[in-house]
Amino acid sequence: MKYQTKYEELIRKCAVSADLSGALALMGWDQETNMPKGASERRASQMATLAATIHEYNLKEIYPLVKDLASVWDELESVARLNVLELKRELDKAQKLPTEFVSLMTKTSSETQFAWEKAYKANNYAEFAPYLEKMFVLKKQEADYYGYTTSPYDALLDSYEQGLTSSMVTTVFEQMKPELKQIIEKVQQSEPISTDFLHQKIDKEKQWQFTMKVLEDMGFDFSRGRQDISTHPFTTSFSMEDVRVTTRVDEFDLSNALYSSIHEGGHALYEQGLLTTNYGLPSGQACSLAVHESQSRIWENNIGRSLPFIEYYFIDLQQLFPDNLKGKDPLQVFEAFNVVKPSFIRTSADEVTYHFHILTRFEVEREIMENRLKVKDLSEFWNAKMKEYLNLDVKEDNQGALQDVHWSMGAIGYFPTYSLGSFYAAQFFAKANQSIPDLNNQIKAGQFLHFKKWLNESIHVHGKLYPSEVLCQLVTGEQLNVNYFLSYIKEKLSVVYGWT
Amino acid sequence: MKYQTKYEELIRKCAVSADLSGALALMGWDQETNMPKGASERRASQMATLAATIHEYNLKEIYPLVKDLASVWDELESVARLNVLELKRELDKAQKLPTEFVSLMTKTSSETQFAWEKAYKANNYAEFAPYLEKMFVLKKQEADYYGYTTSPYDALLDSYEQGLTSSMVTTVFEQMKPELKQIIEKVQQSEPISTDFLHQKIDKEKQWQFTMKVLEDMGFDFSRGRQDISTHPFTTSFSMEDVRVTTRVDEFDLSNALYSSIHEGGHALYEQGLLTTNYGLPSGQACSLAVHESQSRIWENNIGRSLPFIEYYFIDLQQLFPDNLKGKDPLQVFEAFNVVKPSFIRTSADEVTYHFHILTRFEVEREIMENRLKVKDLSEFWNAKMKEYLNLDVKEDNQGALQDVHWSMGAIGYFPTYSLGSFYAAQFFAKANQSIPDLNNQIKAGQFLHFKKWLNESIHVHGKLYPSEVLCQLVTGEQLNVNYFLSYIKEKLSVVYGWT
Repeated sequence: MKYQTKYEELIRKCAVSADLSGALALMGWDQETNMPKGASERRASQMATLAATIHEYNLKEIYPLVKDLASVWDELESVARLNVLELKRELDKAQKLPTEFVSLMTKTSSETQFAWEKAYKANNYAEFAPYLEKMFVLKKQEADYYGYTTSPYDALLDSYEQGLTSSMVTTVFEQMKPELKQIIEKVQQSEPISTDFLHQKIDKEKQWQFTMKVLEDMGFDFSRGRQDISTHPFTTSFSMEDVRVTTRVDEFDLSNALYSSIHEGGHALYEQGLLTTNYGLPSGQACSLAVHESQSRIWENNIGRSLPFIEYYFIDLQQLFPDNLKGKDPLQVFEAFNVVKPSFIRTSADEVTYHFHILTRFEVEREIMENRLKVKDLSEFWNAKMKEYLNLDVKEDNQGALQDVHWSMGAIGYFPTYSLGSFYAAQFFAKANQSIPDLNNQIKAGQFLHFKKWLNESIHVHGKLYPSEVLCQLVTGEQLNVNYFLSYIKEKLSVVYGWT
Repeated sequence: MKYQTKYEELIRKCAVSADLSGALALMGWDQETNMPKGASERRASQMATLAATIHEYNLKEIYPLVKDLASVWDELESVARLNVLELKRELDKAQKLPTEFVSLMTKTSSETQFAWEKAYKANNYAEFAPYLEKMFVLKKQEADYYGYTTSPYDALLDSYEQGLTSSMVTTVFEQMKPELKQIIEKVQQSEPISTDFLHQKIDKEKQWQFTMKVLEDMGFDFSRGRQDISTHPFTTSFSMEDVRVTTRVDEFDLSNALYSSIHEGGHALYEQGLLTTNYGLPSGQACSLAVHESQSRIWENNIGRSLPFIEYYFIDLQQLFPDNLKGKDPLQVFEAFNVVKPSFIRTSADEVTYHFHILTRFEVEREIMENRLKVKDLSEFWNAKMKEYLNLDVKEDNQGALQDVHWSMGAIGYFPTYSLGSFYAAQFFAKANQSIPDLNNQIKAGQFLHFKKWLNESIHVHGKLYPSEVLCQLVTGEQLNVNYFLSYIKEKLSVVYGWT
C-alpha cells in the first residue's frame, strides 16, 4: 500500500513520544510515592522540561506526518484512518498554544500549587484567591487560543472530553438535580443506618493485604503493575506493561483503603486492557476521562458496593477484622457501605450527594469562565451552593472551596467528567448484565474474570478510536442516558433503606 | 561581559539536558527497585529513546554553543572557561559516534544483557560467548570512531576516566602486583581469623535499621535522598536534591548490608556535595569514575573498616545483634571485617585480593581489544589468571568469567577505575588525616561531619572542573601514588594479623 511506509514511520514516532510520556508519568508517580521532600522544586522543573520536549516532538516530528497522511486518509485502512484523524484533531489543538504559553502555564501551575498547599494549611481561601485568579486569566487566554463558538469554557471542557460543552453538562445536571434532591430527601426521612463498626481501629497491614487480594481477584496483572501507598490514591501508566495504582490506608476507616484500591484497580484494568500493539497510538490510549472514570466507578460502585460483592468477601472480612464485624451480617455491611449522607468532602462523598459536589464545581468554573463570577467571590458562591444542594453550612475553607488541588494545577473543565463517569458506568453495567445474565451470581461467587473480559472486549480494546459518545453507542446501542444511573441507584437504595 | 549572555544560554540548556538525564536515571532506578517484571522489554526501549533524545539534544543544542564559546574561551571567567572546555571535550567525543551506531549499541546492549542473564542461570560461558563477541566487535568499532594513538583500548578507558591509557593501568598494576602477592602470602602464613559469628542469622529489619542509622551519622541528607533495597547495591542521582542509594540485606551476613550501605553512602555524599548552582554543568558533576569510587571506598574501607569505627558502633552492634557478638570485643569484629582470603567473587572480595580480580578483568579486556585473545577463549584465560594470582581453581563459570554483568552492558574499560578508586581513597585519606589531625578520635566518637566537610570542600566542590590527576594534585599535592594504599593496607593488616 502506497502510504504504508509513512504510516509505519508514524507508528514508530508515536512510540518515541509514548516512551517520553512514560518517563514523565514515572516522574509523577515517583513524586507521590518515593521522592524526598527536598527535590520538589527540581522535580517540577524536570517534569516541565520533559513536557515541553514531548510537546515539541509531537509538533515537529509527528504533526507533519499526520497532516500528510490526513490529506489521503481515505486511502488508509480503517484503524489507521481513525488513528490519523484523532492524532490530527489532537495536534491541531496542541499547535494552537504557543510554546512560551505552555512554559508559562507549567510555571504558573507549580506556583499555584505551592500557593494552594500553603493556603490549605492556613485554611484560608483569601490567601489563595490572587493565585487562582492568575490561573483563571491564563485559562481564559488558553480558551482564546483554542477558539470556541459559544462559551470559552467549552474550549477547556473539550480538552478533557472531546466535544463536551457547557450546555451539554448543564442539560445533564438539569435532568439529575430534581431526581437526586428527591432521593436525598427520601433518605433523610428513612431510618438512619449505623456505620460505627466501619470506624473501629483496624490493622493497617491487614487492610493492605486485603486490598492486594481484591486487586488480584479483579484480574489486576501484578506482573504488569503494582500497588503502593500515597496521600491521594491515583493510577498511572508508563505503558500497558507497567500500570500502577496507589491507595491510602486509614486505621479507622475500612472503606477508605478498600474502595480506593477497587476504584484505582478499575482504572488500571483499563490501562492494562489496551492492546500493547497499539502502544503510542490513539488506538492504544484510553478513550476519554469520563470513560476512564466509568471504569473505576463500575468496579467501585456497581460491583464493589453491591450486595453480592459484600456477600462474597464477607468471610474474608470477618476473618480479617473479627472485632469490627462481630454480630454483623453481609446485608448490614452492604448498607453501611452505601449510606447516603450530605458531607463536605467530595472524595469521601456517597454515590448520590457526590454529584452535587461536582455540580458546584461545574457551576463555579462556568460562572467564572463566562465572567459572571469573580474568583475572589468563589468561596461565598461555593458555600451558598452547598447550602442550597446539601443543606450544609461550610465553616472552614478546607471543607469548602479549598479542598481540591485540581484548580491550582490548571485542571479546569475536568470535574464534570467524574459525574459523567458514574453515569456511563451505570449504563455500561446495565449492558454487562444483559450480556452476562449470570453476572450477579458470578460476583457472589467471586468470579470477576468474565466481567473483566467483557470490559476488555467491549470498551478497552477500542482505545481512543471513537469519541466517548460513539463508544457508548457502540457498546450499549444508545447515547449517554442518565436514567440508567437513576434506576441503578434507586434500586440499590431501596434495598439499603428498605423502601417499598 | 560580551559572551555572558551566550554562557547563560549554555547554562540553561545544560539544565534541560540534566533534566532529561534525571528522568533517564529515575527509569534506571525504578527498574531495579520497583518495576514489575513484565515491563522489562518496554522499559529498555523507553530508556533507549530517552538516551537518544539526550544525545541529540546535546549535539544539536549544546554543542554549537559550546564551540562558539570555546573559540573565545580566554575571554570567559575561569569557571566558565573550564566548563566550556570540558563540555567541548565531551561533545567532541560524543559527536564521533553516528546516531545509528548509538542505537545499535543500545539495542545490542539489551540483547547481550538478556543473553548474559540466561547464560548466568545456565552457568555456561559458552552460551554467552557469541553475544559477547558481537559486543566486543562493536566496542572495537566504537574505539575506531573515537580514534586512538596506541591502543584501541585507550579510547574506551578514556570514556570512563579522562586520559587513562592501557599502559598507565599496566604500570600501576606492575607496581602493585608483587606487593599485593607478598601481602597475600604473609596472610597465608598467619594465624587464621574466625568470622563465623558474622554469619549467624541476623534479623533483616534490624540490619536495615542499622544501615539507616549509619547513613544518617555519615551525614547522608535524607531530605535529599533515600535508601531502598535492590539485588545489586548502587547509587543514582536525579539532581543534587535527589540522590538514592540501595543496599542488600543478607540474613546470614552482617557485613553485606552494612558495607553496601556505607559504600553507596560514600558515592551519595559526593553527589549531594556537588553544588546545586552548578546543576547540569561539568562543575556540577562528579570528576570521574575513579574519583567517585574513591569516595565510596574511603567511607567503606578507610573509615568503615577501621578499628575506631568499629569501636564507636560496638555498643550499637551488641545491642542489635547480641547473640552474634556474645563474648566478642571490638578488636575481634575489626579483625573479622578485615580478613584477607582469596575468593571467587569480586564484589565480596577483601581489600587486597580485590585488585587481582580487577587486574584479571583489565588483562582480559586489553588482550581482546588488542587482538591477542579471542572472546571464546576468555573463560580459560580468566581461570588461568585466577590460578596464577589467587591460586584458585575456578570450577563454575558463574564463579568465574560469567559473574559480572558489566561486559554485557558494553562497560568495557570500566573495571580499572575500581582499583584506582581504592588507591585514590588511600591517598585522600592520608591527606585528610594531615588536615584533621584528630580524625581518628573523631571517628571513635562517631563524629564524621568534620571529615565529610573536608571531602565536600576538598573534592566535591570542584565537580568535574579538573581531570582526576589534576584534582589529586590539587587535593594532595602530588599525583596518584599507590604507596599510600600499600602503607595503609599493610598498617591495617599488621594490626589484624598481629604482624610485628
